[in-house]
Amino acid sequence: MQLGIVGLGRMGGNIARRLTKAGHDCVVWDRNEAAVTELGGEGNRPAGDLADLVAKLDAPRAIWVMLPAGAPTESTISTLAGMLAPGDVIIDGGNTFYKDDIRRAAELEPKGLHYIDVGTSGGVWGLERGYCMMIGGTNEAVDRLDPIFAALAPGLGDIPRTPGREGRDSRVEHGYMHCGPAGSGHFVKMVHNGIEYGLMQAYAEGFEILRHKDSTALPENERFTLDLADVSEVWRRGSVVSSWLLDLSAIALTKDEQLSDFPGEVADSGEGRWTVMAAIEEAVSAEVLSAALYTRFRSRQDHTFGEKLLSAMRFQFGGHTEFKTK
Amino acid sequence: MQLGIVGLGRMGGNIARRLTKAGHDCVVWDRNEAAVTELGGEGNRPAGDLADLVAKLDAPRAIWVMLPAGAPTESTISTLAGMLAPGDVIIDGGNTFYKDDIRRAAELEPKGLHYIDVGTSGGVWGLERGYCMMIGGTNEAVDRLDPIFAALAPGLGDIPRTPGREGRDSRVEHGYMHCGPAGSGHFVKMVHNGIEYGLMQAYAEGFEILRHKDSTALPENERFTLDLADVSEVWRRGSVVSSWLLDLSAIALTKDEQLSDFPGEVADSGEGRWTVMAAIEEAVSAEVLSAALYTRFRSRQDHTFGEKLLSAMRFQFGGHTEFKTK
Amino acid sequence: MQLGIVGLGRMGGNIARRLTKAGHDCVVWDRNEAAVTELGGEGNRPAGDLADLVAKLDAPRAIWVMLPAGAPTESTISTLAGMLAPGDVIIDGGNTFYKDDIRRAAELEPKGLHYIDVGTSGGVWGLERGYCMMIGGTNEAVDRLDPIFAALAPGLGDIPRTPGREGRDSRVEHGYMHCGPAGSGHFVKMVHNGIEYGLMQAYAEGFEILRHKDSTALPENERFTLDLADVSEVWRRGSVVSSWLLDLSAIALTKDEQLSDFPGEVADSGEGRWTVMAAIEEAVSAEVLSAALYTRFRSRQDHTFGEKLLSAMRFQFGGHTEFKTK
Amino acid sequence: MQLGIVGLGRMGGNIARRLTKAGHDCVVWDRNEAAVTELGGEGNRPAGDLADLVAKLDAPRAIWVMLPAGAPTESTISTLAGMLAPGDVIIDGGNTFYKDDIRRAAELEPKGLHYIDVGTSGGVWGLERGYCMMIGGTNEAVDRLDPIFAALAPGLGDIPRTPGREGRDSRVEHGYMHCGPAGSGHFVKMVHNGIEYGLMQAYAEGFEILRHKDSTALPENERFTLDLADVSEVWRRGSVVSSWLLDLSAIALTKDEQLSDFPGEVADSGEGRWTVMAAIEEAVSAEVLSAALYTRFRSRQDHTFGEKLLSAMRFQFGGHTEFKTK
Repeated sequence: MQLGIVGLGRMGGNIARRLTKAGHDCVVWDRNEAAVTELGGEGNRPAGDLADLVAKLDAPRAIWVMLPAGAPTESTISTLAGMLAPGDVIIDGGNTFYKDDIRRAAELEPKGLHYIDVGTSGGVWGLERGYCMMIGGTNEAVDRLDPIFAALAPGLGDIPRTPGREGRDSRVEHGYMHCGPAGSGHFVKMVHNGIEYGLMQAYAEGFEILRHKDSTALPENERFTLDLADVSEVWRRGSVVSSWLLDLSAIALTKDEQLSDFPGEVADSGEGRWTVMAAIEEAVSAEVLSAALYTRFRSRQDHTFGEKLLSAMRFQFGGHTEFKTK
Repeated sequence: MQLGIVGLGRMGGNIARRLTKAGHDCVVWDRNEAAVTELGGEGNRPAGDLADLVAKLDAPRAIWVMLPAGAPTESTISTLAGMLAPGDVIIDGGNTFYKDDIRRAAELEPKGLHYIDVGTSGGVWGLERGYCMMIGGTNEAVDRLDPIFAALAPGLGDIPRTPGREGRDSRVEHGYMHCGPAGSGHFVKMVHNGIEYGLMQAYAEGFEILRHKDSTALPENERFTLDLADVSEVWRRGSVVSSWLLDLSAIALTKDEQLSDFPGEVADSGEGRWTVMAAIEEAVSAEVLSAALYTRFRSRQDHTFGEKLLSAMRFQFGGHTEFKTK
Repeated sequence: MQLGIVGLGRMGGNIARRLTKAGHDCVVWDRNEAAVTELGGEGNRPAGDLADLVAKLDAPRAIWVMLPAGAPTESTISTLAGMLAPGDVIIDGGNTFYKDDIRRAAELEPKGLHYIDVGTSGGVWGLERGYCMMIGGTNEAVDRLDPIFAALAPGLGDIPRTPGREGRDSRVEHGYMHCGPAGSGHFVKMVHNGIEYGLMQAYAEGFEILRHKDSTALPENERFTLDLADVSEVWRRGSVVSSWLLDLSAIALTKDEQLSDFPGEVADSGEGRWTVMAAIEEAVSAEVLSAALYTRFRSRQDHTFGEKLLSAMRFQFGGHTEFKTK
Repeated sequence: MQLGIVGLGRMGGNIARRLTKAGHDCVVWDRNEAAVTELGGEGNRPAGDLADLVAKLDAPRAIWVMLPAGAPTESTISTLAGMLAPGDVIIDGGNTFYKDDIRRAAELEPKGLHYIDVGTSGGVWGLERGYCMMIGGTNEAVDRLDPIFAALAPGLGDIPRTPGREGRDSRVEHGYMHCGPAGSGHFVKMVHNGIEYGLMQAYAEGFEILRHKDSTALPENERFTLDLADVSEVWRRGSVVSSWLLDLSAIALTKDEQLSDFPGEVADSGEGRWTVMAAIEEAVSAEVLSAALYTRFRSRQDHTFGEKLLSAMRFQFGGHTEFKTK
């Protein structure tokens, strides 16, 4: 079926590629002309601008916006809303805050426009493996776009079936889920990322403990020098902690057990923060997800003012001198 | 090859079964006669007592002790040590604290006895899937027992190979790793369990946040009622948070989305605690692993004294009355 | 000087009392007539309604709103804004979210109205001890109301002076601070409450550890039965952890070492939550303040869904049966 | 009364000074001769070595050992034990792990020697303010030494009395508490230090949040530049978070609001670690005390291996490039 795609970065471009490969008809645009030209050369229909993209699609249209969350997505959707006709669908496939989805869907509804939010997981592996999608929107719109979602999703593959799913929504086993009304897709994706932070931090702490087991601060007969690449590999094989993130850790540690390419300053995106805020709004205790987020904050700082204050108090009450040595 | 097995509970019994199936010759004993009889009926050689078990094995012997950590393991190993001859090997396959391994190996060495500690992961699935094993001990002993470990391990299976492992220890890809000297096997397994706690807690918090998204404390247009069985399933398919623990969560949630069989009081074993203590000894920050452990502690309490003290302070400074309503 | 006071609950009533005692002229109103009558009998001028309160004040007026944050405060200020004249001042002394202050001040400014936010700490002890006040607003308005703030504040008292404050703003030593523009007063008060949560939780955990030192899970020779009332008292006297919250803990523990009046379900107010959200917006790690908040969330739950999920996973991988015993 | 004092560092020296001032007869020794000479010049009796110190005391003797915990204390007590006679008392006033106290008391008892452990709080201010003391040992020994403890303690001072203490142990109000048998004094002191870490971290996080409220990452109209010295001062005056640690923070921030003398690398001593371990042994959740400890661990690291692993995973799944920019 036809789909307009706005935003041809790593994610948007690969979505177009995967859809075209599956026989869909994608009209693509990006403010970066080179990206449009490149995708055009791979069987997609290039558009000259947003208006041209809209014009090249038959009604009812569906346009997938795959841009950075915030201003770029907001202004594009706002512009599109002025160009589209009742029955058309706007899909936000980016990392939008779910409350913005709720607001937008309410704004677009009086104009007869449908709004779908799609949280996609799978990263750079999605082109090949397919994208896990969490979708929010009306039944009408989500059902209409089912061929698109089905083509993007991983499908059943050779992943073992979960017993007892007979009679349940079969789309889920194919890797995409209609979670509920607008916003619910990005909400589920947001929590997914929050969990992701927690999982990553659990491994990070574990490997840190393994690594420092050769510390000279320990009694000599209690020190071990452990091969972390081997540990990450052996745990992939039958252990309780096997996971895709562990697979990726094994790849990284096997390549360089010191991970010396990485300075250790870890970025965080909105989803990790919003997940903690959502927990607080619900009065849910989220110790692990918060701690994982805070570790990233801390990783990007040299020394904190709070830590200086600790030293200052220690000096005041105990005369402990944690002064600058020069 | 020959192996004595002491302790025929769920783990020990299945280890005997898997080894026998692979053609090894197991002499088995447990203080529970029924277990000995049962295993004997499955092709293992039953022993009448520890001395009989030792007598039925040819030197150099190897005896796998699979008993609860602490007193049962300690006394059995101590008894065995008095029955064995130089060159024999004692294997502790239980959940022993690694510092006990270090001590025992040092105690047994002057007698010419080898000591191997094996941390095994895989739980009740190990009989079928094979056990992931983390092994500590001397090269001589670990190498001699390689056929046993190879038979218990999962083997290569159809798990994708990690690029760049050419030239590395091939046992690791088959699911068992010689981590280092005595104690290192249980140490790596201990950290494995610490990570396991953290991973589990990350999922637990995430699903808790999803579940309470229909809370009436939230604005009405921000509530979603989410199908958690479906969420757990869709994340298995191409998402970043896919893992074996997620597979198991999907099984449980699909069976009963309310998890109403489970009261929510969660046990913890020594490994989770020891991992945090190891982190502290190494001066490593282990926020997530600690928080995961503490959640379990808290889950087993009704109300804590600390929380009463919070209420008491609030009453004192603010007149907040969080009294018993009787 | 003249001051209108709207809201005569515990805080508002005591503020009126302390001001009247200091010779100020308070016009008071509350929708609860009994409160108005009571305060009227203590030397304040009772008003019949908001309009009457406004009418009873000479321009430029100053009206202190002391109502629950959210709708009650919002609607009262909105109504007042329609009754007041340029140059008048509205003071929000409640627990308003500081972003609401920023918005309101911007809304009122075109009408020539001043807006002051005052965070007050001191709880039920404030009438006697005076209130610690954190104030946001324009210099003009805050300076004009200085006699009110000076009368409400504790004053120098016998608290030791901090060396080096010569030349600094002397109001601060008297217990009130002009923190900055509108919103800054409530922001500082909000962080004050966040810290308060952290301090309280530190004591709560410490006393919990002391109390369980007689646990039968510990080796018999490592158990102590400690008198917590005495511990709280001795720490008040020269120790590093002495504080007002410890004074209050000592009062509570001395009255009843079991704290058996308190069920252990601890409320939280907006400030604790907002503080964590502010930390996240600033990318500041706030482990302790978050953990303190989460403990309160958890204290109000019986068992969490997340904890059930932990049990469910444990059952799946290990056959651990944490079932309902019914 | 007579007291031998071994170890004349900051703490031991001031203890001798405070006792001499109170009319007690101190025989002092330190391996640093200059310290012995200095104290001798202040009215204490200098000893030439341990044996001389023992010889200069009348039986039953009491000797206060004030040395670094671990080997120095252990070997000194061991040596003393060989020189003393039944009925003599050894006091360990250092920061000894309470399990070592329990062991020592059991070792000394068959020799008829008493062992007292004293946890002292008050830091460098103790000479002037008096020391808060938490004492473990037999009634006989602790009672005999009461004049010593009474002289070292702060006494009633002008701290408000806690209501309801009539009929309770009056020593507590004077600032020293007989907590229970040997080990209990250091145990209570250990938890005191754990709480201290938590309190300090609560302030540290709060001031960090205040300080970064001017971050350019925030919307321009939501930024405040706050005077932290003034905030710390105003909170000392009637607020709920007033404490001695806040007094000290105010001193430090008033001297230099940037705390630029302090690099931000914060040491931790055994007590903070032992408190968390004690919590784990008791299965008590100690989120805040742990987080406070971990912050100190993290403050002393540049970047952690765990954080590098986070970046490595992010690169693997998302192509996120947190590489060294070289």
